[in-house]
Amino acid sequence: MRYDLLIRQVTVVDPGPEGVAVRAGQDILIQGSRIAAIQPTGQVDPASAARVIPGEGMVAMPGLINTHAHAAMVLFRGSAEDVPIEEWFNDYIWAMETNLTPEDIYWGALLAAVEMIESGITTVADHYFEMDQVAEAFVAAGLRAHLAWAMFGQNPREELDRTATFAARWHGAAADRIRVWMGPHAPYTCPYDFLQEVAREARRLGLGVHIHASETAEQVQSSLQRYGVTPVRLLERAGLMEGRLLCAHAAHATPEDISLMAAHRVGVAHCPKTFLKLAAGIAPVTAMRQAGIPVGLGTDGAASNNTLDLWEQMRLAALLQKHERRDARALPLHEALTMATWEGARALGEEERLGRMASGYLADLILVRLDGAHVQPVHRVEAALVYAVRASDVDTVIVNGQVLMEGRRLLTLDKAEILRQVQARADRLAQRAHGRRLQTYR
Amino acid sequence: MRYDLLIRQVTVVDPGPEGVAVRAGQDILIQGSRIAAIQPTGQVDPASAARVIPGEGMVAMPGLINTHAHAAMVLFRGSAEDVPIEEWFNDYIWAMETNLTPEDIYWGALLAAVEMIESGITTVADHYFEMDQVAEAFVAAGLRAHLAWAMFGQNPREELDRTATFAARWHGAAADRIRVWMGPHAPYTCPYDFLQEVAREARRLGLGVHIHASETAEQVQSSLQRYGVTPVRLLERAGLMEGRLLCAHAAHATPEDISLMAAHRVGVAHCPKTFLKLAAGIAPVTAMRQAGIPVGLGTDGAASNNTLDLWEQMRLAALLQKHERRDARALPLHEALTMATWEGARALGEEERLGRMASGYLADLILVRLDGAHVQPVHRVEAALVYAVRASDVDTVIVNGQVLMEGRRLLTLDKAEILRQVQARADRLAQRAHGRRLQTYR
Repeated sequence: MRYDLLIRQVTVVDPGPEGVAVRAGQDILIQGSRIAAIQPTGQVDPASAARVIPGEGMVAMPGLINTHAHAAMVLFRGSAEDVPIEEWFNDYIWAMETNLTPEDIYWGALLAAVEMIESGITTVADHYFEMDQVAEAFVAAGLRAHLAWAMFGQNPREELDRTATFAARWHGAAADRIRVWMGPHAPYTCPYDFLQEVAREARRLGLGVHIHASETAEQVQSSLQRYGVTPVRLLERAGLMEGRLLCAHAAHATPEDISLMAAHRVGVAHCPKTFLKLAAGIAPVTAMRQAGIPVGLGTDGAASNNTLDLWEQMRLAALLQKHERRDARALPLHEALTMATWEGARALGEEERLGRMASGYLADLILVRLDGAHVQPVHRVEAALVYAVRASDVDTVIVNGQVLMEGRRLLTLDKAEILRQVQARADRLAQRAHGRRLQTYR
Repeated sequence: MRYDLLIRQVTVVDPGPEGVAVRAGQDILIQGSRIAAIQPTGQVDPASAARVIPGEGMVAMPGLINTHAHAAMVLFRGSAEDVPIEEWFNDYIWAMETNLTPEDIYWGALLAAVEMIESGITTVADHYFEMDQVAEAFVAAGLRAHLAWAMFGQNPREELDRTATFAARWHGAAADRIRVWMGPHAPYTCPYDFLQEVAREARRLGLGVHIHASETAEQVQSSLQRYGVTPVRLLERAGLMEGRLLCAHAAHATPEDISLMAAHRVGVAHCPKTFLKLAAGIAPVTAMRQAGIPVGLGTDGAASNNTLDLWEQMRLAALLQKHERRDARALPLHEALTMATWEGARALGEEERLGRMASGYLADLILVRLDGAHVQPVHRVEAALVYAVRASDVDTVIVNGQVLMEGRRLLTLDKAEILRQVQARADRLAQRAHGRRLQTYR
């Protein structure tokens, strides 16, 4: 046996800096955690692989990269509907989040892992609380994860120490499937001097920083009044752009903000469904991409986004750039596919090993069926993937060479037990009459 | 046996003029083509029904109503991507449509029927060519359909006679599952005197008229220059609002147009995905609804929309009103669910018998699973249906009392044969080098 896994006679979709290459009739050879080779079917004897997955009629592409999530918020799915962002935070989310125990977060992260694997996500950048639980859940699931423990700067030393401890335990763990980031919540919740401390600590620990910024026009106005600069400029001033920075949303980034982010190679996580739903505006993705900013896609949390479906984000991202720019040529197929994969890897600083179908890259990939009545006939594979495929068309999911789902059967997680655990917790978690809240959105 | 079918212990979702009622633990009794009763489980002996479908863990709701489609255009799915509307029509669609034979349209309509049934659509208002073939396909599928044979007014007498013959054969056929409409294409393609003739003929035959209008800002400008009035006003002037009128899109309806449509009870078919994709603008749905216009949802054709998924249209409709109005309260859950069902029935003039879960209404209904990891936990059933459910969660589809799909198994159509037929035709249909076209978009 020369190879651990052979995926045989599949159509390979490889997104990268030059566009998207589509090649039919390929064999993918996997050795350990890496893609050893991709070559036309017939050059290798199937007996030389320990395991063979037939790929006929399917597409093999990089696993989807979810650059911004709050996975355990699936616990609050559908509990805060048709409300503006202030009410969403103050009356619902920050009230309900006080109900969470570490065990709740563990089971929520597992439910999210099921949903993400079933929809073809292989890497997630998660930003939440009780991240030891989240790390345990994702390691058990077999996912790749970039984890940030949320901080508001209410107890600066304690919060910074917690992340340092978390990083010591998890950064590079599970065969380097887990990486740790620092997670200050946002410039509108964290005091400025705390942001400066985070920047210093990030440099000391060698970690990236994952933060929310410029979510609404009001936040930008408020930052201008309070600090005289936009939230994005404030991040730079606090020193946060001296290391790797991942900025969730940046929906109201100004042209100057975009230049600044591009100059500092700041990654952006674009989560269009949440932003439509909360009526918060849509990021100038086309301008960001033109400036060279790596813009990945994110599902955000299911309390605003309702699903963790990156296909839906990809489709919305493309449709909305066309709509916002009144140009049907905007954000074409190959750009949408690249954002969901390799651009996401770039936003996380993983572009050298993740997000492409090429030999030497990590074996994080998915097989997608194109034989559904809603996909046929396939005049163009890229169009099928961006505008017709559903999350339920994902057949097989592989991370780091390990098969997590095959033929839609989950191989690492006990879905029935996870659903039982979550359902048993749902009513208690939705309680808001206690009047507590984590934070106040102003 | 007193009943033909009992759906047992299901959560019933009933959208109507007063909002959406959600009632758990119900039995639905069906006799012939109608809902005989809906009542709490336990009041009727299951032995009194010829057939019992267990509904536990599922929602029963009215089948989705697709108020504007070109079903057979699934044949062109994914063949005209990232192009503006002029190019889309002139260089792709109207060129490829010259390749169609009646048999192609038959198989295309069958593929569309599979996709629609699998995604929970029970009624479709279709607008295309060779409608005898489409009628045959939909009757075989068991769908309910409102069919219009497209006319450009190039050979007025021949086109009007064709519709008259079509109506004589099909209006009220298949136990009144089929209804015929007149189908002038649009005010920008049909001569004005032809529109007047259509209005007269529609009155004579007692048929409604299904037309495209005000799709782009340019069409409105062009109508103002050519006729001195908007396309919607032109329809009224031609006499088309004297009978029932269904207006696809009306994306650029002015406030005066909206008043006019409301005064004449004109129905609107809203197809947001196509309009995002072609960058043509989004209809002022909230203003239309406030004026009392019945706004249904449509999938349009798959050459622009890529799928015939009305869940996606419902979700986009809600998200886009929030976005366009910068108000997260706009188009709330109950309105979105109603638009996909009972408002669609209103737009088609079927509101007395279709689109609700109530005794006496036609037994056109679907069962939807809510147990997916992407839907759980269910804090609110309406939120699950609008923002989390996928077309693949539709489990069972019933039209006119006939079960078309159960447990996702199609009972009326041979999907494998339909896919074979379509795949064999796809390459020939995509040919454009011949230089022919049906029409020219200016």
